[in-house]
Amino acid sequence: MAKPTPTPSTVSSLPLYTQIKDRLRAGILDGTYAPLAQVPSEYELCAMFGVSRITVRQALGDLQKEGLLFKIHGKGTFVSKPKAFQNVTSLQGFAEAMSSMGYEIFNQLRSFRTVKADRQVTDRLNLEPGSEVVEIHRVRLLNRAPVSLEMTWLPASLGERLVKADLETRDIFLILENDCGVSLGHADVSIDSILADHDIAEALQVEEGSAVLRIERLTHDAEGLPVDYEYLYFRGDAFQYRLRIDREKSRKNTRKTR
Amino acid sequence: MAKPTPTPSTVSSLPLYTQIKDRLRAGILDGTYAPLAQVPSEYELCAMFGVSRITVRQALGDLQKEGLLFKIHGKGTFVSKPKAFQNVTSLQGFAEAMSSMGYEIFNQLRSFRTVKADRQVTDRLNLEPGSEVVEIHRVRLLNRAPVSLEMTWLPASLGERLVKADLETRDIFLILENDCGVSLGHADVSIDSILADHDIAEALQVEEGSAVLRIERLTHDAEGLPVDYEYLYFRGDAFQYRLRIDREKSRKNTRKTR
Repeated sequence: MAKPTPTPSTVSSLPLYTQIKDRLRAGILDGTYAPLAQVPSEYELCAMFGVSRITVRQALGDLQKEGLLFKIHGKGTFVSKPKAFQNVTSLQGFAEAMSSMGYEIFNQLRSFRTVKADRQVTDRLNLEPGSEVVEIHRVRLLNRAPVSLEMTWLPASLGERLVKADLETRDIFLILENDCGVSLGHADVSIDSILADHDIAEALQVEEGSAVLRIERLTHDAEGLPVDYEYLYFRGDAFQYRLRIDREKSRKNTRKTR
Repeated sequence: MAKPTPTPSTVSSLPLYTQIKDRLRAGILDGTYAPLAQVPSEYELCAMFGVSRITVRQALGDLQKEGLLFKIHGKGTFVSKPKAFQNVTSLQGFAEAMSSMGYEIFNQLRSFRTVKADRQVTDRLNLEPGSEVVEIHRVRLLNRAPVSLEMTWLPASLGERLVKADLETRDIFLILENDCGVSLGHADVSIDSILADHDIAEALQVEEGSAVLRIERLTHDAEGLPVDYEYLYFRGDAFQYRLRIDREKSRKNTRKTR
């Protein structure tokens, strides 16, 4: 079909390393290079594509930043496992969401303390400045590999009821609902991207400066009162959030606000 | 009030650099250190907290990874501006969402090409392998600073109708709806965190290896057919996504699936 094309070409004017990156990425995504398989060496890739070592290194480095490849020092470059994902169109705890997909979940309880809350925590939980809260740090393991670090703050009177709960296998959401009789309502969630600092890197067993998906989540009870404030730090190379968004709502909102 | 506390102490057993990081973070978030203000020098912070330079550096480095501070070589360390955010509870284009919050939006059109689509793009858009698509690259500027790189693929027959559209100020969503008569339905969205590679770093004017929030978005028309496939790369230090999630839906789903 001779359609008019608005711009001249389908000829690639992309830099060489981008073309090689695109070819390797396609090979990873279509399964030519299997998860955990070793990719050809820099030397082999130079020969395959007829390019210099610096070009190959740039392509491999970019795919590593994207989380599709990882390096083991002295061994070579390998294909990352596909990312696990959680569908967040509805509010679920991590174990609740992931175990329904066949993953094995376990939590390392790193600390459970009653502390004087800082300003941000009392603001969010609608407590008097300086109130005590229960602070829980857990690392969540997916098929025995660390995938997220969770920091949770609960008002002390509620949080102290969790001291005997099984925090190693159960979601806090389900403990609140089933053991404490709290009906959960909605959560306000903020999502951004940061680099792993020393503490996060140590907890998630990644290098400092790795990509981290950070979720700030304030969960309310059915009456709309805040009950559970959290920071969730996910390994960028191992996890993604998915959701479905409808246009309809948006157009209603637009009409309302204009 | 002498409540029983389940664990011993409110005394801090945190490492020194974590305590200093927490103090500085609180100062940034409560406005003691204003956006774009310079924070005290390493030397001054050592004196203020009575700690070593290595401890101060670790705290400052961590806050930089978190996106709260940035360094200008030879000038010092400064407080980042608060992140802009987009509420994604409903599906809106970036300009539509941000201009209603008082931001000035402008788009740099980097390329508009008709290309032979790769496998991932034809799969998502439900096209025959090897079909032609229109590929649009834009950098979106918020108050004149780059905040995201958008790569958009549209079926060629639809995309070619955008060649004369004002892609520098208008959202593709609104062009599709208002100029092309496409009613938009829902979008499936995946969110993860990666590091800026060479191309993304250059487009967003950040250093390679900076934190990037990556959104993969497949938008469907009102009949549920895929019409617009995108990768959006947001500066991690400048942007966050926000949404509200309801528990109710989740419990219904849980009942259904068990």
